Amino acid sequence: MDLERSPLALPFPDMPAIEGVTLRVGRAGYKNWDRADLTYAELSKGTALAGVFTRNVCCSSEVELGREQVKLGQARALVVNAGNSNAFTGYRGREAVEQIMAQVAHHLDCKPSDVLVSSTGVIGVPLPKDKAEAGIARVLDAPEVSYEDAARTIGTTDTFAKGATATAMLGDTKVILNGIVKGSGMIAPDMATMLGYIFTDAAVDPAFLQQCLSAASAGTFNCITVDSDTSTSDTVLAFATGKAGNAPLAGFDDAGADAFMAALHDVCRQLAHLVVRDGEGAQKFIAVNVTGAESDESARRVGLAIANSPLVKTAIAGSDANWGRVVMAVGKAGEPADRDKLGIAFGGVWAARNGLPLPDYDEAPVAKHLEGNEIDIDVDLGLGEGRATVWTCDLTHGYIAINADYRS
Amino acid sequence: MDLERSPLALPFPDMPAIEGVTLRVGRAGYKNWDRADLTYAELSKGTALAGVFTRNVCCSSEVELGREQVKLGQARALVVNAGNSNAFTGYRGREAVEQIMAQVAHHLDCKPSDVLVSSTGVIGVPLPKDKAEAGIARVLDAPEVSYEDAARTIGTTDTFAKGATATAMLGDTKVILNGIVKGSGMIAPDMATMLGYIFTDAAVDPAFLQQCLSAASAGTFNCITVDSDTSTSDTVLAFATGKAGNAPLAGFDDAGADAFMAALHDVCRQLAHLVVRDGEGAQKFIAVNVTGAESDESARRVGLAIANSPLVKTAIAGSDANWGRVVMAVGKAGEPADRDKLGIAFGGVWAARNGLPLPDYDEAPVAKHLEGNEIDIDVDLGLGEGRATVWTCDLTHGYIAINADYRS
Repeated sequence: MDLERSPLALPFPDMPAIEGVTLRVGRAGYKNWDRADLTYAELSKGTALAGVFTRNVCCSSEVELGREQVKLGQARALVVNAGNSNAFTGYRGREAVEQIMAQVAHHLDCKPSDVLVSSTGVIGVPLPKDKAEAGIARVLDAPEVSYEDAARTIGTTDTFAKGATATAMLGDTKVILNGIVKGSGMIAPDMATMLGYIFTDAAVDPAFLQQCLSAASAGTFNCITVDSDTSTSDTVLAFATGKAGNAPLAGFDDAGADAFMAALHDVCRQLAHLVVRDGEGAQKFIAVNVTGAESDESARRVGLAIANSPLVKTAIAGSDANWGRVVMAVGKAGEPADRDKLGIAFGGVWAARNGLPLPDYDEAPVAKHLEGNEIDIDVDLGLGEGRATVWTCDLTHGYIAINADYRS
Repeated sequence: MDLERSPLALPFPDMPAIEGVTLRVGRAGYKNWDRADLTYAELSKGTALAGVFTRNVCCSSEVELGREQVKLGQARALVVNAGNSNAFTGYRGREAVEQIMAQVAHHLDCKPSDVLVSSTGVIGVPLPKDKAEAGIARVLDAPEVSYEDAARTIGTTDTFAKGATATAMLGDTKVILNGIVKGSGMIAPDMATMLGYIFTDAAVDPAFLQQCLSAASAGTFNCITVDSDTSTSDTVLAFATGKAGNAPLAGFDDAGADAFMAALHDVCRQLAHLVVRDGEGAQKFIAVNVTGAESDESARRVGLAIANSPLVKTAIAGSDANWGRVVMAVGKAGEPADRDKLGIAFGGVWAARNGLPLPDYDEAPVAKHLEGNEIDIDVDLGLGEGRATVWTCDLTHGYIAINADYRS
């Protein structure tokens, strides 16, 4: 099935090189695709590593191993397989990952645990070891490619290549952060997952890099949803080569730590938005802003209940200012809420306040806002200071076409 | 929008009369419908009452009042408004309900708290008091109608009238249980909710009737889902007129209590299935059987995660034996599960066992099963003795058409 480029796609940004990061792509032939399906990133010695992973308990071997590797805090290489998720494949799947780690470690003369592996695609088919081995041998000799090429190669049913970049000043030293990501739902025909990789030349202590990545993910990757279906392979990794030469960051009190954190958050937010913009069947990009909750976490849960509601998502697809469905979603979230304090706005225009429709509510500007493809929903719970923003896309015939009209 | 009759519809069953229950329908004109929209059930003195209600915290005044009335345990009448849910309408909505209660109480010379009111339809528009008053006056004089007429009148976007009946022997006394229900999702254009009513001539103590109804709902109404969207008005009420003349049931040790409970459970299960069979856009009826969970409640949550997964529902719509999506849904349920003990079957044929695809898995009978419109998914978690069955329908273009292609 050929998928059309999402109407919400953004152009790939210009990305500067990052010293210590070398990207290559090649072809293992996991599927009958007429394109590269194997991505390899070589990282200079001393690169710090951090990662966050899916909470799905039926996760892949790659995720299980990755969790252990992140504790060691260092990396020399990343391998990404596209077309086969290697999830739910038992010991045979794990052997395939360990083979890739050993093969690359031998090439780089490093420890296997320094080699990170991710895979997305079909669930339940062990990654074929012979194809992996031959593919790795080829990719190690392949020419260097751009971040855009790498972003395209890690994709599966993605309709456009996704990347984001930012810089930060750490004292007098400018550091670069480049990120690439793939994903557009739990995903299409047998495919699965969001994978994100962030590369920086900043020098960052692994433990602090992990702290920064976890914090940045909480308000970005963990605040997006396409279809409420949590993949078995979701992974975001951050690699810091340290080649920029700044004094290594080890805590939030260090000079430049705030700037680095802000830049990392910026890249994570951009990447997270790009995944939503490639959501299956998406025609509209929706931001749900929840304020007045008892806590930020409560606000996030209410936001996710709204963003995951099929009735809210179809209403937005139909450009329908159906705030009754938003009321319903708030009420079912299982979080503190008081019907008689609730306010709801579309595009900044309040339709209801204090649990009552506003008598002077003017639907004309709201209807105009909803005809567009960047939708804002504001929900004020009127209880406390908790707030969160959650991003999603609408639910359209395109989603059904991608997921039901096709036989795996 | 005219909706086609669901392909999963069942014929309305023959229902015997129940002594002490008189049904009438009339027209209040809440919407521009060319049909009755007001249902009235008169109940003989001494009728016991029980009820279960939505857990949505943004519930309607009808639900708030109903919760209090159920504690009193007695009822003389039921009024059901169709076309306006009266939810999110503040004090004006509450006044309309209280007016109806007072009007009917005056007519019957009973307490207002003996009059139950339900409403479904548009959210956010106070029920118009003048239309309600005139409608009630008319319906009190209207001729008696059948359960099928009443079932049709309580409906909103339902595509067929839904009812179920059962009998039980309490010692030498045969008692009848008749139930009607409406609903097909949180529901279509601005509509909302499942409403269910069960009438019996059995003599049952209100507290015990509540115990029975709560227990029966747990494994029936609380185990169905169409789109994961919990309505603001969901209500199931049970009325026991006592006219059968059995020795009143007051506890599970009473003779005949087991038979009554079994018949009540049977009616609730049938009614719950009928709601799924009228699920918006439904083409297939799906039973998800979860075994081997740590507890029954854990099994129910895993079942709901599967039944609510858009990717599982679209796979079934596409007749696709995509067990990888079931693995994903089990993993995201947040319940105890072990990937390497998991088994998944479609139509009784196991595709995976102990976390691995079966090498001799024969997809032919599975493909045939999935082409049908009654689908069984079995999931064995391999951990304990907990089990549950959850019922749902597939997610099709019809759901999108009903909910997105129409402007409210």
